[in-house]
Amino acid sequence: MSKIQCIGVLTSGGDAPGMNAAIRSVTRAAIAEGMQVKAIYRGFRGLISGEIREFHTEDVSNIIQRGGTILRTARCDEFTTPEGRKKAYETLKSEGIDALVVIGGDGSLRGAAALSAEYNYPVVGLPGTIDNDLYGTDITIGYTTALDTIMEAVDKIRDTASSHDRLFIVEVMGRDAGFLALNGAIATGAEAAVIPECAIGPDELTRTLKQGLRKTKNSSIVLVAESEVTGGAIGVARRVRELYPEFDVRVTILGHIQRGGSPSATDRILASRMGIAAITALIEGQRNVMIGIKNSQLVYVPFSRAIKGDKAINRDLVNAVSILST
Amino acid sequence: MSKIQCIGVLTSGGDAPGMNAAIRSVTRAAIAEGMQVKAIYRGFRGLISGEIREFHTEDVSNIIQRGGTILRTARCDEFTTPEGRKKAYETLKSEGIDALVVIGGDGSLRGAAALSAEYNYPVVGLPGTIDNDLYGTDITIGYTTALDTIMEAVDKIRDTASSHDRLFIVEVMGRDAGFLALNGAIATGAEAAVIPECAIGPDELTRTLKQGLRKTKNSSIVLVAESEVTGGAIGVARRVRELYPEFDVRVTILGHIQRGGSPSATDRILASRMGIAAITALIEGQRNVMIGIKNSQLVYVPFSRAIKGDKAINRDLVNAVSILST
Amino acid sequence: MSKIQCIGVLTSGGDAPGMNAAIRSVTRAAIAEGMQVKAIYRGFRGLISGEIREFHTEDVSNIIQRGGTILRTARCDEFTTPEGRKKAYETLKSEGIDALVVIGGDGSLRGAAALSAEYNYPVVGLPGTIDNDLYGTDITIGYTTALDTIMEAVDKIRDTASSHDRLFIVEVMGRDAGFLALNGAIATGAEAAVIPECAIGPDELTRTLKQGLRKTKNSSIVLVAESEVTGGAIGVARRVRELYPEFDVRVTILGHIQRGGSPSATDRILASRMGIAAITALIEGQRNVMIGIKNSQLVYVPFSRAIKGDKAINRDLVNAVSILST
Amino acid sequence: MSKIQCIGVLTSGGDAPGMNAAIRSVTRAAIAEGMQVKAIYRGFRGLISGEIREFHTEDVSNIIQRGGTILRTARCDEFTTPEGRKKAYETLKSEGIDALVVIGGDGSLRGAAALSAEYNYPVVGLPGTIDNDLYGTDITIGYTTALDTIMEAVDKIRDTASSHDRLFIVEVMGRDAGFLALNGAIATGAEAAVIPECAIGPDELTRTLKQGLRKTKNSSIVLVAESEVTGGAIGVARRVRELYPEFDVRVTILGHIQRGGSPSATDRILASRMGIAAITALIEGQRNVMIGIKNSQLVYVPFSRAIKGDKAINRDLVNAVSILST
Repeated sequence: MSKIQCIGVLTSGGDAPGMNAAIRSVTRAAIAEGMQVKAIYRGFRGLISGEIREFHTEDVSNIIQRGGTILRTARCDEFTTPEGRKKAYETLKSEGIDALVVIGGDGSLRGAAALSAEYNYPVVGLPGTIDNDLYGTDITIGYTTALDTIMEAVDKIRDTASSHDRLFIVEVMGRDAGFLALNGAIATGAEAAVIPECAIGPDELTRTLKQGLRKTKNSSIVLVAESEVTGGAIGVARRVRELYPEFDVRVTILGHIQRGGSPSATDRILASRMGIAAITALIEGQRNVMIGIKNSQLVYVPFSRAIKGDKAINRDLVNAVSILST
Repeated sequence: MSKIQCIGVLTSGGDAPGMNAAIRSVTRAAIAEGMQVKAIYRGFRGLISGEIREFHTEDVSNIIQRGGTILRTARCDEFTTPEGRKKAYETLKSEGIDALVVIGGDGSLRGAAALSAEYNYPVVGLPGTIDNDLYGTDITIGYTTALDTIMEAVDKIRDTASSHDRLFIVEVMGRDAGFLALNGAIATGAEAAVIPECAIGPDELTRTLKQGLRKTKNSSIVLVAESEVTGGAIGVARRVRELYPEFDVRVTILGHIQRGGSPSATDRILASRMGIAAITALIEGQRNVMIGIKNSQLVYVPFSRAIKGDKAINRDLVNAVSILST
Repeated sequence: MSKIQCIGVLTSGGDAPGMNAAIRSVTRAAIAEGMQVKAIYRGFRGLISGEIREFHTEDVSNIIQRGGTILRTARCDEFTTPEGRKKAYETLKSEGIDALVVIGGDGSLRGAAALSAEYNYPVVGLPGTIDNDLYGTDITIGYTTALDTIMEAVDKIRDTASSHDRLFIVEVMGRDAGFLALNGAIATGAEAAVIPECAIGPDELTRTLKQGLRKTKNSSIVLVAESEVTGGAIGVARRVRELYPEFDVRVTILGHIQRGGSPSATDRILASRMGIAAITALIEGQRNVMIGIKNSQLVYVPFSRAIKGDKAINRDLVNAVSILST
Repeated sequence: MSKIQCIGVLTSGGDAPGMNAAIRSVTRAAIAEGMQVKAIYRGFRGLISGEIREFHTEDVSNIIQRGGTILRTARCDEFTTPEGRKKAYETLKSEGIDALVVIGGDGSLRGAAALSAEYNYPVVGLPGTIDNDLYGTDITIGYTTALDTIMEAVDKIRDTASSHDRLFIVEVMGRDAGFLALNGAIATGAEAAVIPECAIGPDELTRTLKQGLRKTKNSSIVLVAESEVTGGAIGVARRVRELYPEFDVRVTILGHIQRGGSPSATDRILASRMGIAAITALIEGQRNVMIGIKNSQLVYVPFSRAIKGDKAINRDLVNAVSILST
C-alpha cells in the first residue's frame, strides 16, 4: 500500500454531540502527520456531488464545544446503490483523497463498508451516534451528552412533581435500542423504562405504577423509547388512560433536543482520542475498522462486527431501575 | 387593625421556579420583624385541611436554588366555594394566623381575593407563574426561568438543523398568553411564533416558512403556544403536512420541563425582593394587593386589577420576530 | 441630514454575552430598512486600520446563542487621541459608512461621543457590558447572563458547604460598580457582599460572619467585588485570617468566566430589541444617544448622561442581603 | 459469618457529586434485601460521636440529582488513631450495625481498612472523589461531573478570547493527581496542562505558549493543577510574567465550584450501580474491598490495592494535548 498523503473526513446520518470534536481531532492529527485534509460536506451526498474543501488547522478552531456538525450531515439514498458508490469513489480519486474517515452510526458504517469492499479503499469509522447501538465499543460519541440532556429535562419535570397521582411519560430517542431510556431512567430515578429490548405490557406497566403511587403517594415518571410498536409516549399514555382513567397523565416528547447541545467532557475526550486513533490506524495500514473503546482502551473493530447490531442491554440495569425506584 | 403577630404562607396553582426563593424571603423577612411564620402545605387545600407547621429560619435554608415548591401546591376545587373558604378562614383563626401571603397565579389570587373580601382578612399576593399573565407587574416569578428553559431546549434543536427543508415545531406553555412563545421565538431566533393573541392561519404560516426555507435553504423552527384552538404543535404539524406534504416536520412538546429547573438569578432576586415587600406591605396595613414590579420598583397592585387578565402583548415583539428571522 | 444608506457596526471594550445578538439584530434591522451593513472588526482599532467587511443576512445566522463577539473587541489607546479619531473618521468616509452603531461599555461610549462631537457624525450606542454601570438604562446587555454565571458557580460552592466553620470568599467582577456582587449575593443567599459603593471593614465583616456562623453552625459565603482597595478576595481573605485565624478560608476567583457563556433569554431579547431600536433611532435622526431600557420601554439616553457613571446602588438590596441571610 | 441484618452508610473526606446517588442506592438496595439501614452523619466523626439515625426509602427520595452529601462529611483526625477507631467500633456494636459502607476517597478508604483490620469488621468502600486517584477503578464517583464543571468554566473563558497575546491560567483541583487538569485540557482544547505527574518548567511552558501565540495570533488557555510545588495558577502566572512581561496574563481559580453541582448522568449511574454492588458484595461475604468499575464491569478491589495511589496517567493523553492544540 502506498503512503497516505491526503485524507477525507465526513459526518453522516443523524448528528451527535462530539462530531465536531472528532472532526477537529482527525484534522489536526492528520496535519501533525504531514497529511493534507479534505472536508466533505453533507456526508456521502457531498462525496457524490463533490462538495469538498481543504481544511487547515484554523478551520477547526473553536468548534470542540459546539453541538451538531460543521460538515453538516445528510441521509443519502443514492449512496446505498452501487452507482452512487461508484460516483463517490470517482470523487475520491479525482480529489486525490487516499483514505476516508467516516463519522456516523450504524447506517453510515454500512455504507462505508460497502464502499471499502467494492473498491478496496481504506476507510476508518468513528462511532458517532447518540443511540449507543454499535457493537464493539462501550460507548459511542454523543451518547453520554444525550443522556445528560435527557437527565436534565427529567430533573426539571421532577421539580414540579406534586401531590397528585400524576404520571409523567417522557419519550426519548432509541427506536431500536433502549440504552437512552434505560440509563436515563436510572440517572433520573424514574419509576420505569419502556424499551424495545424488554417488552412490558401496558397492564404490567400500570400495575407497577399503581404500586409505586400507592406507596409513595406522589408523582411517577416513566421513560419510553420512541417506537412504532408501543406508539411511544402518546401510545403508552393512551393505553394507561384507557385502563386507569383516574390517572392524570402528562406527555413530554423530548425530540431533537436530544441530538443537540454542547458535548460533555466525556464525549469530547472520546472524540478527540478516537480522531487521533483513526489517523494512527490508517498509518498502521488498518482499513475497514471502526475505532471503539473497551476498558478505556482504544480498539479496532471490523465493520462487519460493529454493525451487526445486537449489543445487549445489561440486565443488571433493568433490575436496577426496579430496585432503586422502590 | 391590630398588629400582625403571625403570618401564614402558601403556594398555589401551577408551580413556578422561584417559589422557594419567595417562601424563604417571606419567612425570613417576617422573622426579622418579630413575627411567627406558619407554613401551609398544598395550597388552599392544606388551609382547609389544616396541613400546617411553624417555620423557623433554618427551615428555608438551602432552598433558594431549588425548582418547585417545598410547600407543594395543589389546585383545590373546594376553595372556589364559599363553604371551602369558610373552612379555610376557620383554620386561620384556630391557628392564630393574622395575615396570609399567597404565592401563585391568576386563579390563586382570585381565591385569595374572595377570602379577603368575605372575611375582611389581610392577604398579600406574590405573582408566581411562568405564564407572565398577571396585570400590573412587568414580570412574574418564574417567567424568566421558563424562558431560559425554552431557549436552551430550542438552542439544542438548532444544533441539529441540517440541510433538509426540515421544520421543527416546538410546543411551549401559555394556553392563554403568548409571552413564552413570542419571547422564546425572539430569544432563539425562531422563524415564527403561533400565539393566542395573534391568530396566524396554517396557510399564512406555511407561506412564511416556505419563503424562509427558499431563502436560507435550511431548517426552520416555529414556537407554538399550547392551545385547544390550534391543537398545539401536533395540530399545527398536521395542517402543515396536509398543505405541504414535502415538508419534513418534527414535533417537540416541552411540557412540564418548563415548570422546573433552578431559578434564574432574575427570578431569585425578584422573589427575594417581593417576599420582603409582602411583609412590609402587611406592616403598612396593605391588604388585597399583589406585589408587582414596574420600572424596577416594587408596587402594590389591587387584586382586582392584577387578575383582570388582559396584559397586552407588545406588538413590537411580534414585528421583531419577523424582522430578525429575515 | 441626508438619508442613511450604509451603517457600520462594531463592538468595543470588554466583551459581554449578548453582543452577538445585538450585532445580528442591528444587521438584520438595517437590511430590512434597505441599508447596507459594514462590520468593523476589533472595535475602534479596526475602524482606524480599516478591518471592515460587508455583512449580509447569513453572516449573522446562528450567532444569537454564542458568547463573546464575532466582531472581536479590543481596547484601543490610539482612539482616545484626536489623531486616532481623525483616522477613524477618514475610514468611515472612505468606506461610505453614513452612521455608526457602537456596542460597548462606558469607555466605548465615551469614545463614540468624542468622535460624534468632533465630526458631527451620527453615532448610536448600545449598552454592552456585564458591569451594568451605565446610567439611563435599567440593565445592560450581558449583565443578567453574568449574574446567572456567578450564581451557578456559587450554587456549586454551596453544595459542598459542610459542618466546619468554613468561609468561602468568591471574587466577582465590578471594579467600579457592585451590581454583580450585591445582586449575586441575593441570588445565592450569600451572607455578605463587599462592594465598592458600601465600605465594609474587615472587622465588621468578620463580626457579621461570626454571628452567622455561631447561629447556623455552617459555612458562609461572601461575594467580593474585585478591587485594588480591598485587594479583592485574596486581600479580604488575608485580613480575615489575620483577625480570626480559626476560620478555614477558601478563595475562588471567578475571573473571565463571567464574561462568557451563552447569553440568557433576557440578554438576547434585550439585545435584539435594542438593535432594532438603534436602526429606528438613526432613521428618526437621533444621534449621540445610547439606547436604554426603562420600565420595559426602550428610551434614548444622551451619551453625556449615560456615561456620567454614578448609577446608584439600590439601598434596599443592601438591606435585603442582611435580612435574607439571617 | 452471621447474616448481615443492619448496615451503616457514611460519606467521608472531600465531598463529590454523586455521593447522594450512592447513599440512595445503598439504602434502597439494602432495604430491598430486607436489611435495616443506619445513616451516619459527618463521616467517621459521627461514627465516633454516635450521630446516627435510621433511614427508610423515603429518606433518600429526591436526592439523586443533588450535589454534596446529605450525610455531610468531615475530616476526622481522631479516627486516624487506634483509640478513635475503638470508639467507632463500639458505636457500631451498640447500634447493632453489622457492616459498613464507606463512600469516600483515598484517606477514607485507608481509615476503613484500618477499622476493618483491627476488628475483623466487614467494610465495603465506594470510590467517591473528584480526583480519580484510586487504583483499580477506571473512574471514581464525582470525577466526570468535576470534569464537566471545569470544561463549562473554561468554555466561558474561551468565549472572551480576543486578539491580544492574552494568556488565561486556570487552576483546577488535583494536588496529587493530574487527571482533572489533563483531561480538562483535552476537553476544552487548552494549549497546555501543568500537572504533578509530568513536570513542565516555566521556560518550556512559555516556549510552548509563544509558539502557539505566534501561530494562531490568539489567546491561550493553560490548565494548572493546584500544587505547592508550582504554586498553582498564581505561581505559574508569576513566573510567566517574570520571563515574558509582554504577556497579558489572567488568573482564574475555580476552587470549590469543582466539588459541587448536580451529578452527571455518568456519575449517577455509576453511583447507583456501585451502591447495589456494595450490598451484593456484603451478602456474598466480601469485606475490605472497594467496588470499582473496569471495562464497564463492576469489580471488587482489595483496599490495599485501591489505595496504593499510583494510578498512572495515560501518556497518550499528554501527547493528545499537544497534537490537538497545534
